[in-house]
Amino acid sequence: MTATPSPARPVDAPGPRRGLGVGELMLDGGFWGRLQETNARATFQHCLDWMERLGWVANFDRVAAGTTGPDRPGWQFSDSEVYKLLEALAWEHGRTGDPTVDATFRKLVDRVAAAQDDDGYLNTCFGHPGRPGRYTDLSSGHELYCTGHLLQAAVARVRAVGPDDRLVEVARRAADHVCREFRDGGRDGTRGRAGICGHPGIEVGLAELGRALDEPRYTEQARLFVERRGHGTLAPVALLSPAYFQDDVPVREADVWRGHAVRALYLAAGAVDVAVDTRDDELLAAVEHQWTRSVERRTYLSGGMGSRHQDEGFGDDWELPPDRAYCETCAGVASVMVSWRLLLASGDVRYADLIERTLFNVVATSPAADGRAFFYANPLQQREPGADVRPDEVNPRAEGGVRAPWFDVSCCPTNVARTLASWQAYAATVEEDAGGATVTLAQYAAGEVRVDVAGGALTLRVDTAYPADGVVRVTVVEAPAGPVRLRLRVPRWAADATLVCPRGGTPEPVAPGWADVPGTLRAGDAVTLDLRVAPRLTWPDARVDAARGTVAVERGPLVLALESVDLPDGVALEQVRLDPDVAPRVHGDGALARARVVALPEPAGGTPPYVAGPPGPAASSDAVDLPLIPYHRWAERGPSTMRVFVPTV
Amino acid sequence: MTATPSPARPVDAPGPRRGLGVGELMLDGGFWGRLQETNARATFQHCLDWMERLGWVANFDRVAAGTTGPDRPGWQFSDSEVYKLLEALAWEHGRTGDPTVDATFRKLVDRVAAAQDDDGYLNTCFGHPGRPGRYTDLSSGHELYCTGHLLQAAVARVRAVGPDDRLVEVARRAADHVCREFRDGGRDGTRGRAGICGHPGIEVGLAELGRALDEPRYTEQARLFVERRGHGTLAPVALLSPAYFQDDVPVREADVWRGHAVRALYLAAGAVDVAVDTRDDELLAAVEHQWTRSVERRTYLSGGMGSRHQDEGFGDDWELPPDRAYCETCAGVASVMVSWRLLLASGDVRYADLIERTLFNVVATSPAADGRAFFYANPLQQREPGADVRPDEVNPRAEGGVRAPWFDVSCCPTNVARTLASWQAYAATVEEDAGGATVTLAQYAAGEVRVDVAGGALTLRVDTAYPADGVVRVTVVEAPAGPVRLRLRVPRWAADATLVCPRGGTPEPVAPGWADVPGTLRAGDAVTLDLRVAPRLTWPDARVDAARGTVAVERGPLVLALESVDLPDGVALEQVRLDPDVAPRVHGDGALARARVVALPEPAGGTPPYVAGPPGPAASSDAVDLPLIPYHRWAERGPSTMRVFVPTV
Repeated sequence: MTATPSPARPVDAPGPRRGLGVGELMLDGGFWGRLQETNARATFQHCLDWMERLGWVANFDRVAAGTTGPDRPGWQFSDSEVYKLLEALAWEHGRTGDPTVDATFRKLVDRVAAAQDDDGYLNTCFGHPGRPGRYTDLSSGHELYCTGHLLQAAVARVRAVGPDDRLVEVARRAADHVCREFRDGGRDGTRGRAGICGHPGIEVGLAELGRALDEPRYTEQARLFVERRGHGTLAPVALLSPAYFQDDVPVREADVWRGHAVRALYLAAGAVDVAVDTRDDELLAAVEHQWTRSVERRTYLSGGMGSRHQDEGFGDDWELPPDRAYCETCAGVASVMVSWRLLLASGDVRYADLIERTLFNVVATSPAADGRAFFYANPLQQREPGADVRPDEVNPRAEGGVRAPWFDVSCCPTNVARTLASWQAYAATVEEDAGGATVTLAQYAAGEVRVDVAGGALTLRVDTAYPADGVVRVTVVEAPAGPVRLRLRVPRWAADATLVCPRGGTPEPVAPGWADVPGTLRAGDAVTLDLRVAPRLTWPDARVDAARGTVAVERGPLVLALESVDLPDGVALEQVRLDPDVAPRVHGDGALARARVVALPEPAGGTPPYVAGPPGPAASSDAVDLPLIPYHRWAERGPSTMRVFVPTV
Repeated sequence: MTATPSPARPVDAPGPRRGLGVGELMLDGGFWGRLQETNARATFQHCLDWMERLGWVANFDRVAAGTTGPDRPGWQFSDSEVYKLLEALAWEHGRTGDPTVDATFRKLVDRVAAAQDDDGYLNTCFGHPGRPGRYTDLSSGHELYCTGHLLQAAVARVRAVGPDDRLVEVARRAADHVCREFRDGGRDGTRGRAGICGHPGIEVGLAELGRALDEPRYTEQARLFVERRGHGTLAPVALLSPAYFQDDVPVREADVWRGHAVRALYLAAGAVDVAVDTRDDELLAAVEHQWTRSVERRTYLSGGMGSRHQDEGFGDDWELPPDRAYCETCAGVASVMVSWRLLLASGDVRYADLIERTLFNVVATSPAADGRAFFYANPLQQREPGADVRPDEVNPRAEGGVRAPWFDVSCCPTNVARTLASWQAYAATVEEDAGGATVTLAQYAAGEVRVDVAGGALTLRVDTAYPADGVVRVTVVEAPAGPVRLRLRVPRWAADATLVCPRGGTPEPVAPGWADVPGTLRAGDAVTLDLRVAPRLTWPDARVDAARGTVAVERGPLVLALESVDLPDGVALEQVRLDPDVAPRVHGDGALARARVVALPEPAGGTPPYVAGPPGPAASSDAVDLPLIPYHRWAERGPSTMRVFVPTV
């Protein structure tokens, strides 16, 4: 790490590799630039308005005024939504310096800070008159989880404006309080072990705040929380197994992610932080192994994780039903958090590949075009059109096939907000050693990267219409005096990619992985990577039972989907059979695929839908070409049915 | 209806058709006889022991002693388990006259009766010192649901021993209390309507008790509960939609079953009772339509209902994943209750077909061979071997792939017990009109049927090894003076059935449906039906996405399953591909099917399980013959993996 103040970025792990600060890449429109703009223009205020309307912000005022009582609006974890919005505002201000964003942030912080107890405890659901006592329900109370998000918000703030800030002070006192209460020998969990929280989140918050404030006590407390877990430490909760809480097997012994997906992934992120900070290679290797097994067998084409609505959880290996895919938006956010940490720790390109897949197909799928409605679950098949959602209505549940303005459990909107506001962080890594600096572009978006390395500033101009087009042109605007190299990610799906290097001239094939641009960069150098985003067919592994006999269409990093509104009149989605022998063609930002429309028999009449003979050659139409759109845009034209995996037989 | 006391049977609807009393068929071993014997010998005491151990029976003692308080063992619906056991004991005693069963019943009734309040209210969870007040949580409290099961137990008793009985008196007072409290203008639900219970069950209990005691007030109260439902009558419960409670659409307007499967089916059963008793043809037609649509599109090959663990509910049309099939045992019991009522009302053979499918493949699947462990959920694919269950351990949840001795929510064991104890009721119907009597055998089991009809007694001897063998021989032991006809069910699956009639001699083909034996029966007549239970292949409808590219094997009424313990060493279930071009052969009580064992590739290495090329022709073994066993016997040889639908490609 350099001695200069580090730019504002969500993860600042010790080691040879750092991500970009949110101010080190200025996006120039494009896919992510537009999402980020909508996020700032619409989503922040949308979230704030809802939390005011529902009284989730006023909960802090009531604690401050001493007027708490048995009736309190919101779930026990609603404080965390306020903190996630604060984190989003902190990144946004760090990126743009916008004083109105800063003013919104400060006003909200004042109300939060007023609710903090003298000893640092800060929670609006527990520990005040008329409310249950502090830490009386570690399994379900979410107190430490909320504190974790408070700390993450403070991490954003300290990295954006420095430690001299009211929220940072609040977080420091809250973290000190947690360290006092949950030190070894502190508050008991079950079985003689000190307590942990049913929902992880405190681990990653403490670890990053420890880094941001150079406070090893916080890192140590994060380590304690990680190590205590997995021994049946939490008091049992009816109908929930210890695996739901990842309290069945210690992190360093677990083979795969299981239980509630967001919990599993937040815990994994915290475990990587602890492993890196304490040089615990065994723990790091355990999480890497869990990542591999879980990605290979428990992850959807979209990058989505969580196959079960029940317990919002991972399923068994190969249990990946498209229609009941839960793929919670927050699990997508959390998966990016884990993969990003592992990328920093290892430099392995596969983590960047999964980040791209998840960002485009889970995170970007959640928000509506106007930034004021969100998907909670992200299934890959919708059988029934969702009901219309009223813009003033709280959605009771993560169902439906339509984006909803707000949810009873509304974790996703603010999680999208903080992720989009800090998107830059994940776009590139910077490494420096005695031989010079290496800048690695991990994600592609039009804009300008400006980083300070030994020897001076490096400025790169990236021109691309990615992912609508696969050509990425990188121009060196300004180069430092010392040696600096450029490395580009060739995604795993880009089998036919080519690269034109400075002083090269002709396109050379480059294999998926990291492509090193030869030589050191000089101002004026230009590199052209062509990733060829032609539509392609993708088949499920033979073990994915629920998608047998189907094929999907992808284009570049985008999963495509067939939506009922694009079908000819009178044709139902279940009648479409895709012809895998005809390559799909480019069509707008999606594809046109060859298909047949088959006639399906009437149901058999009073008996379950299983028949005595094999499905014969159904009467079918001539071949038709049907448009598929990017999955992230589905359900933007009203309630519809949709599928990513289209039967071929 | 005849003037003689009606035999003891669960449903005694007005109309031309009645079922058998539990004493009108004496089973002679065989499939159901053995299950019934184990039920009586082991399951009753097993259930009683568990309910004593957990304090669910003692809850009644505490109410009687006035020692209730905030801590109460069991869920709010645990009383219903005691009542279901009482119902089972009442049927058993009605069938056998066994005085030890009667003594057990009476002792338990004494403890229940002692807990009844002076005004007839009877519940151990609500309405007593230290407990929440009566009917303070209609949505989730299950008070009326529990009362419904109390009434059903009393129905069994009044039909077995007559109305002069302590439990019958308790039930009468409880029913009177309900009628007073929940009359129109009585206790409020939401939106100005009088209340209903979140879990249906009171409707069917009131309706049958009304019939048993000839008390039209009870029928009218059942009607009120049915009609009030579906108008958003229940107070909302967090994260549960009104459809969960069937409170979204009135019964007579609903198109399909939805929400919690057991609730939907108990409600439908009560609605049929109300429709028949009040000659409400519109309501009856509505339930018949719901049955048809739900069976055709939301029911598994096993007859199982409920595709989702989440909310224990029905899924969308065609949403029938084998691996996450919930198919709760209680939903199987409830489905039989509905279909039986519709069969009595309509005489349509399709209801008897579904009853057979459900009895053999859901109800019979639940209990272990020793009658002391049970499946709660009945999935058609098990991906991971279940964990071993300890015989002294309460299973927290309906997961696992192993039968558990008892559950935290333990509705299934006692539901199995009461169904097996009254199995006879569903085996035949009797119709009488001016032209004579018709006895219809709807289910086949070795034993002797003896019914009194106009003109005297008819005694039929049934000899069969069904379902291991398809030959059913019916001999007339004793015939009445008047005309009496015999009708036999030819199941829908029995495409090649033949019938040898009295005075016929040669087997004649008979089509699926009702086969009428010509002429009136005389003593000495013999009829031989051959249903040909050779193994056969069954394909999922093309709309059942989750089973595309697979085939199942059935044999007679039995669904078969491939279980990992029957595979050659080193072969995993996911490697098996069944060859549908080779007919499976008889093998023990199952089948031997031709298959290949394919080699599956290693997972792709750090990327989700979707690949760029179609699954090529995998290296595979020579053809092998693999044994499939009846699904109802799976997991009896230790934890295993299993599948009913085996891939062909």
